[in-house]
Amino acid sequence: MGKTRIIAPPGEPFIDMERDFDAPRELVHRAYLDPELVTQWLGPRKYEMVLDQWDARDGGAYRYVHRDGQSEHGFHGVFHSMSIDNMVQTFEYEGAPGHVSLDIQAIEDLGNGRSRVKSHSVFMSVADRDAMVQAGMGEGVEDGYNRLDELLAKLQPVGASH
Amino acid sequence: MGKTRIIAPPGEPFIDMERDFDAPRELVHRAYLDPELVTQWLGPRKYEMVLDQWDARDGGAYRYVHRDGQSEHGFHGVFHSMSIDNMVQTFEYEGAPGHVSLDIQAIEDLGNGRSRVKSHSVFMSVADRDAMVQAGMGEGVEDGYNRLDELLAKLQPVGASH
Repeated sequence: MGKTRIIAPPGEPFIDMERDFDAPRELVHRAYLDPELVTQWLGPRKYEMVLDQWDARDGGAYRYVHRDGQSEHGFHGVFHSMSIDNMVQTFEYEGAPGHVSLDIQAIEDLGNGRSRVKSHSVFMSVADRDAMVQAGMGEGVEDGYNRLDELLAKLQPVGASH
Repeated sequence: MGKTRIIAPPGEPFIDMERDFDAPRELVHRAYLDPELVTQWLGPRKYEMVLDQWDARDGGAYRYVHRDGQSEHGFHGVFHSMSIDNMVQTFEYEGAPGHVSLDIQAIEDLGNGRSRVKSHSVFMSVADRDAMVQAGMGEGVEDGYNRLDELLAKLQPVGASH
């Protein structure tokens, strides 16, 4: 069983997720803002990550491609805000153009150098949301968060957080 | 009764709107893209419109303020895409920070120099959607669209469209 709690309520165009990390929230935030760090964790491990653009500020844009030997998957969107308790961005998979979702994320302080990422995704329809779940989004997110976990451990001086 | 068809289905976080205009869709599109034109129609007639920024391209941002003698209301967001059949942007009223919605609009060709703007708005929750309806959003939209109607008539050479 994964460490990410994922809720996709029947008949509603939402996906809610929660994941706890063994790192202070400022460091987690940095891993979302800094393209050098993003490229090391965002997305499933099996793909090569090509980060074309990651301008994580209000009004900035992003685009990245996940690729393996067989296929390439492009994603892009814009950042509406990127403060630690209100990261808001659009998301579009280029394989399904015109189907855009809105991701709202907050990083909470759990104390003792730990933090929680809460994510609320809003889709244009319940059908869009269901398609995202069926495309294996849960596994991809879990894999990416596991990589983020490992990256955060590397970024912290040993024994610093507890 | 207004000329805009507005649907807010109970229990769903959506607002759908349709409005027909007596102008070709390219001209309507221009009225959405060009800040000089946007400032002449966007929002209720009773407010002065102050357009701080309107960079209507993929990855661009916008901000405007509606004000009268008593109050000021700021709005801002980012453009995800602005093609004629897929205009996608975020929307946040600064009086309710953190409540962001996603607007998806398309301008359809009705033939004979007429066009239809279809709008689909997606909110973070049903409560957010209901608050928007209760804030009188329908009247504001109707008023803005009526101004757009008048602007489009001025922009077209007399007798050119039929």
